[in-house]
Amino acid sequence: MHAKVKKAVLAYSGGLDTSVILKWLQEAYGCEVVTFTADLGQGEELEPARKKALLLGIKPENIFIEDVREEFVRDFVFPMFRANALYEGQYLLGTSIARPLIAKHQIEIARKTGADAVAHGATGKGNDQVRFELGYYALEPGIKVIAPWREWDLTSRTKLIEFAEKHQIPIAKDKRGDAPFSVDANLLHSSSEGKVLEDPWAEPDEMVYQRTISPEAAPDKATYIEVEFEKGDAVAIDGKRLSPATLLTKLNELGKANGIGRLDLVENRFVGMKSRGVYETPGGTILHAAHRGIESLTLDRGAAHLKDEIMPRYAEMIYNGFWFSPEREMLQALIDKSQENVTGTVRLKLYKGNTAVVGRKSPKSLYSLQHVTFEEDAGAYDQRDAAGFIKLNALRLRLLKKGRG
Amino acid sequence: MHAKVKKAVLAYSGGLDTSVILKWLQEAYGCEVVTFTADLGQGEELEPARKKALLLGIKPENIFIEDVREEFVRDFVFPMFRANALYEGQYLLGTSIARPLIAKHQIEIARKTGADAVAHGATGKGNDQVRFELGYYALEPGIKVIAPWREWDLTSRTKLIEFAEKHQIPIAKDKRGDAPFSVDANLLHSSSEGKVLEDPWAEPDEMVYQRTISPEAAPDKATYIEVEFEKGDAVAIDGKRLSPATLLTKLNELGKANGIGRLDLVENRFVGMKSRGVYETPGGTILHAAHRGIESLTLDRGAAHLKDEIMPRYAEMIYNGFWFSPEREMLQALIDKSQENVTGTVRLKLYKGNTAVVGRKSPKSLYSLQHVTFEEDAGAYDQRDAAGFIKLNALRLRLLKKGRG
Amino acid sequence: MHAKVKKAVLAYSGGLDTSVILKWLQEAYGCEVVTFTADLGQGEELEPARKKALLLGIKPENIFIEDVREEFVRDFVFPMFRANALYEGQYLLGTSIARPLIAKHQIEIARKTGADAVAHGATGKGNDQVRFELGYYALEPGIKVIAPWREWDLTSRTKLIEFAEKHQIPIAKDKRGDAPFSVDANLLHSSSEGKVLEDPWAEPDEMVYQRTISPEAAPDKATYIEVEFEKGDAVAIDGKRLSPATLLTKLNELGKANGIGRLDLVENRFVGMKSRGVYETPGGTILHAAHRGIESLTLDRGAAHLKDEIMPRYAEMIYNGFWFSPEREMLQALIDKSQENVTGTVRLKLYKGNTAVVGRKSPKSLYSLQHVTFEEDAGAYDQRDAAGFIKLNALRLRLLKKGRG
Amino acid sequence: MHAKVKKAVLAYSGGLDTSVILKWLQEAYGCEVVTFTADLGQGEELEPARKKALLLGIKPENIFIEDVREEFVRDFVFPMFRANALYEGQYLLGTSIARPLIAKHQIEIARKTGADAVAHGATGKGNDQVRFELGYYALEPGIKVIAPWREWDLTSRTKLIEFAEKHQIPIAKDKRGDAPFSVDANLLHSSSEGKVLEDPWAEPDEMVYQRTISPEAAPDKATYIEVEFEKGDAVAIDGKRLSPATLLTKLNELGKANGIGRLDLVENRFVGMKSRGVYETPGGTILHAAHRGIESLTLDRGAAHLKDEIMPRYAEMIYNGFWFSPEREMLQALIDKSQENVTGTVRLKLYKGNTAVVGRKSPKSLYSLQHVTFEEDAGAYDQRDAAGFIKLNALRLRLLKKGRG
Repeated sequence: MHAKVKKAVLAYSGGLDTSVILKWLQEAYGCEVVTFTADLGQGEELEPARKKALLLGIKPENIFIEDVREEFVRDFVFPMFRANALYEGQYLLGTSIARPLIAKHQIEIARKTGADAVAHGATGKGNDQVRFELGYYALEPGIKVIAPWREWDLTSRTKLIEFAEKHQIPIAKDKRGDAPFSVDANLLHSSSEGKVLEDPWAEPDEMVYQRTISPEAAPDKATYIEVEFEKGDAVAIDGKRLSPATLLTKLNELGKANGIGRLDLVENRFVGMKSRGVYETPGGTILHAAHRGIESLTLDRGAAHLKDEIMPRYAEMIYNGFWFSPEREMLQALIDKSQENVTGTVRLKLYKGNTAVVGRKSPKSLYSLQHVTFEEDAGAYDQRDAAGFIKLNALRLRLLKKGRG
Repeated sequence: MHAKVKKAVLAYSGGLDTSVILKWLQEAYGCEVVTFTADLGQGEELEPARKKALLLGIKPENIFIEDVREEFVRDFVFPMFRANALYEGQYLLGTSIARPLIAKHQIEIARKTGADAVAHGATGKGNDQVRFELGYYALEPGIKVIAPWREWDLTSRTKLIEFAEKHQIPIAKDKRGDAPFSVDANLLHSSSEGKVLEDPWAEPDEMVYQRTISPEAAPDKATYIEVEFEKGDAVAIDGKRLSPATLLTKLNELGKANGIGRLDLVENRFVGMKSRGVYETPGGTILHAAHRGIESLTLDRGAAHLKDEIMPRYAEMIYNGFWFSPEREMLQALIDKSQENVTGTVRLKLYKGNTAVVGRKSPKSLYSLQHVTFEEDAGAYDQRDAAGFIKLNALRLRLLKKGRG
Repeated sequence: MHAKVKKAVLAYSGGLDTSVILKWLQEAYGCEVVTFTADLGQGEELEPARKKALLLGIKPENIFIEDVREEFVRDFVFPMFRANALYEGQYLLGTSIARPLIAKHQIEIARKTGADAVAHGATGKGNDQVRFELGYYALEPGIKVIAPWREWDLTSRTKLIEFAEKHQIPIAKDKRGDAPFSVDANLLHSSSEGKVLEDPWAEPDEMVYQRTISPEAAPDKATYIEVEFEKGDAVAIDGKRLSPATLLTKLNELGKANGIGRLDLVENRFVGMKSRGVYETPGGTILHAAHRGIESLTLDRGAAHLKDEIMPRYAEMIYNGFWFSPEREMLQALIDKSQENVTGTVRLKLYKGNTAVVGRKSPKSLYSLQHVTFEEDAGAYDQRDAAGFIKLNALRLRLLKKGRG
Repeated sequence: MHAKVKKAVLAYSGGLDTSVILKWLQEAYGCEVVTFTADLGQGEELEPARKKALLLGIKPENIFIEDVREEFVRDFVFPMFRANALYEGQYLLGTSIARPLIAKHQIEIARKTGADAVAHGATGKGNDQVRFELGYYALEPGIKVIAPWREWDLTSRTKLIEFAEKHQIPIAKDKRGDAPFSVDANLLHSSSEGKVLEDPWAEPDEMVYQRTISPEAAPDKATYIEVEFEKGDAVAIDGKRLSPATLLTKLNELGKANGIGRLDLVENRFVGMKSRGVYETPGGTILHAAHRGIESLTLDRGAAHLKDEIMPRYAEMIYNGFWFSPEREMLQALIDKSQENVTGTVRLKLYKGNTAVVGRKSPKSLYSLQHVTFEEDAGAYDQRDAAGFIKLNALRLRLLKKGRG
């Protein structure tokens, strides 16, 4: 009944669900399983995943554990932030942007180990299955894809637990019952959805939040920071140069401490229904504001407006899982071209949930005090030029009104 | 030297600058002056303007004073908010949206009084001159336009004061010296710019803010409100129906009290240079968030994404002064079409500068618990459909990879 | 194995394929079949379809035959032509635009007859299945959809013929063998694809063309016509008012006679692969040119450019089958808004495959000889205005160069 | 009255008008004049321009004559054709694309010769002044710009001739009277406008056309050619590799001989009015069709549709004169990124005004016969996938209909 599979690379977290998948793959497909466990900054130890994989019969040479945090921020998060990407005007795409990276590594491991299939633990109702699989197919068009949640009959928590018990998969005590909601996390954000969060009229309980303290609990005094950018990417905080992942980690700490980055959203999934998510993106929220701040000083209007107009499309591509697509790469070429002089420093005030840009400076600044000043400008700008400018901009409107009466 | 003008309708605030313009028009153009003073919610009494106009020799029948607050919110602010318009990702367009209304009234008064010209007090470096004049020309293509700041030689504060004194224009004590910055205000927002604000690296002083208390000064306890929408427009707060202007006034109070709506921005002017503005839009900030909230539940994805994609262009049109243009009206038709079912209630938490949507409900809700739930869904959604969905979305990417290797 | 179906409305042409489907529905689903046969201008008699349906056991009250040509042109073709819609820069969407109309009628008949299902004869590789089914679902979300080509095992011509013979379905002699290519036709166009056309390097044989004579065979003398428009729709040819379908029929004759409207195209299907189609749209090609011609005189630049920018998206929506979607309706609102003054007459020269606009006039013309003339213009246009216009358009570019060196 | 100018670089054709400008610059500005005469393929000898410049007192070292045809096609025409750029759906931008090249050379010569000003012969009503001057300012923000037609009082042909006679400027016999229309030409196209062409209802006389014979006069037998592309640029015709300018020259010959490339257009100028132009772009018309042809086979759908959507904006930028702008360069980066595999051969049929793509092949072809075929496809495509694809694409539409009834 199942397609013939020889060896499958599983995106493996070490948790109960992917452990059940691991066993189920061995059983249902009779295939060798290779596990890939990535440190994306989700805040969990990875070594337990290795132990568990060994315990479930995976050969040591088939266990791949990698710290991909720097790659994640440098090659995925930063390029996306150059675009000021927001899905549906608000969502910083924290989950979406991690999927292509995982897919890429799974495919690389499949090539290395001669695997003919890849598998993931995303459900059949969500966006993540799409993101994983479009990534797989784009990079390796002939790969077989296994999505257990769409295939098996372990359709309830009870059946899953039974399967785990039957196959002697260890079950943490707190995993026996249903979680009150589902969580995904990486260095950029954590998301919570499902179950207690499914009523969009009900305010999420404080216990939902994992990455941020509440604005109410944050300090009564503002924190000021300076973020330095080079060619569109953040490179330093308060004068200290940091690697991409270290910098984002630092921004996460600052955001968390100041109650920054919470979002309660009803969004449109690619698969067609609306869902409600609660997102926490402390560092990303600061980074987004800071990037807009430095662009405001260094991007020409034509460049800035073009970027703003293509942004929703770019964000949609990432949300829908088309990171590895020609159209995303074309937009990225456009965006990266615009960032050549997005260099300088932004000063921000962080206070109880607020991230306010309060200063920006740049060696590449396009702000001309001489032109804008209310004071005498020594002829930099001839106000009479404005008359002609307006007259010709108005000409077509005047002809229109004349022609139509 | 000046064009021949018989009668000019001046946008008259009653302040020193427009009083000087009034006198200068009489003198330089030798024309009759008609004054138009509007209550746009800027928070100033209008009757002193009448007195002053009389004092400066304007005939009573040439003095027009109107309360246009309801028209402003109903016909300009609300249509714009249906689009979630943000200029350069951040600015709620508080000044921009008031200009076409003023232009429209000036033209109507010109027709009523047989005037052949209109005049405004905007400078030659800013956007407002463009917005006024494009409005004038679009509505009355043959009108003569007088922009004194681009024409006269009163190029310093000293010369202006001298002219005022010479013509016995009353000068308030605090107007003798230069203001530390320039202010524009209406029911939607107040803006401050120039002088002490011209250094984009320097944080604005607290004294700049006029419409909001600081987040720090706001209450330590959150305020919860419910905003009700019908066809995209807000109609009630906490169950109480309010007229457009009354509703925005109420939101302004709520925003002000909770330190909401401040924005410190470097923006790109239509006339070509960058400028720094400090904006306060307390009620508008809440309204914007609430509108996005109700749309998240009631707008279909196709509609929502199309709106998001055209929004930057729409905002740019308003910022640049093209309110009365076919392209703005075309986009408005598209936007209004989308709002037919944007009806329901949004719950917001206002707290020290934060505006968070924490609940939304609607009789027109498109959120289907049955489809999104993690629980058993009784067949509403067949997860196997996702496999085909992904396969065909992936097909072109697979062919691409195969073709290119 | 098959879903339970009580009664199904089949889009029935009377040809062999849909007759086989008819029988197969009765057999595989054991359901009552209702047939819908539409005259879309495909150039076939409809009464034979009635006879054949009766012969195949369809009750008279279950046979629906309708002449929908006027509806087709008025409510589908004309709205689309207002947008100057071209898919991938070239294709006039002749097949795509007919599908939603058929879907709409099938759903209406399903409601009338109490049917719980609809069925169509499109294959599983093409766009038409998508267009039909998105239409069905958008109009009647609970309807069951049967797509025999995706379900049955009649996967070769031989099996199909066997099935037909077994069920005593009459087979025209020329249908026994495989057709050399597949054809779809309606009043707007005819398309040919598949088989002998599958090699994109090979020029289509002359025998492929059905709606047009070749440019070589067309008269050596040009035909001149005048097409009159009102609010964006063509209403008369050479001064004679015609109904929508009659007008398009007349343009088809003119186009055919002059070898106009052939297109040999490799296009991207929504389902993910490329295909090669040969299209003939004689009247549509002339109508498209004429509509652009009248717009060139009557549309303001802002309106025209906005239309041009959204057009590819609009065309894509129709190609992909999203006619009945909020986003298409929103774009239609925008487009229709622009057409209020697209009124006037276009003169065209038709000659051996060429359609050239050679004249346009309109009571709503925005062309101002006074402004554009090389002659003295009596002050309509002050050339000095251009200096200011250019200076301010250049300002940001100058600041950019200065800032960057 | 005139700005102080030391030395001005004039775009000099050697014709009467620019000779008058040359003299007028010397007289009105009292400045040294440097002439720049370019061979853009306009079809005129350049040496007479040198002689005339010498005669008018220009120093030999101040006379610059350059053959820029290869640069023109390689660096301006080809990049633009990669975008399939059409202004207002039809115009191939033949005049627009030449202006930035001329501006660039003038600025380079200004730097070389220490000139502080540049001058051009475009009128104050057209687009060319904008294109020249935006180019000047973008490349050299401090340059002084002289536009004699906006400044002087030689506002009639008579005055111009008088000035020429007074200054002993040679006047060709046929230049004494007014030309019946105005012409611009380069290797890409020739344009005619003004005077006898100003009535948009009147068909242009055959004598207007200079670059093409009429379709009627073209051979009765079609010409077939093959154009080969590499990375989006044409590199060979009928197997013979040609340099960019040589290739375009060859296409021009082919187009001319077959009556290809005429366009009679009413267009919207950037300065606000409509104008009527008659364009001849024989080679460009073929190149445009051929490029679309090769893209149809080698561009992925995502890439192709994104290109189509941004194209109108890109064309508008070039038409309006913003070649040297960040936004054009950003779009170019996007476009060029898409062209990496636009390689292969297109076969075209040229016949009496028609350019038809009749074949395309490519080593990078994305056309998969296996996927598209009506024949058995050996499992390349599973038709059942289409069901899921449609179901999930339909889901939001079904929820919408259910929610709204």
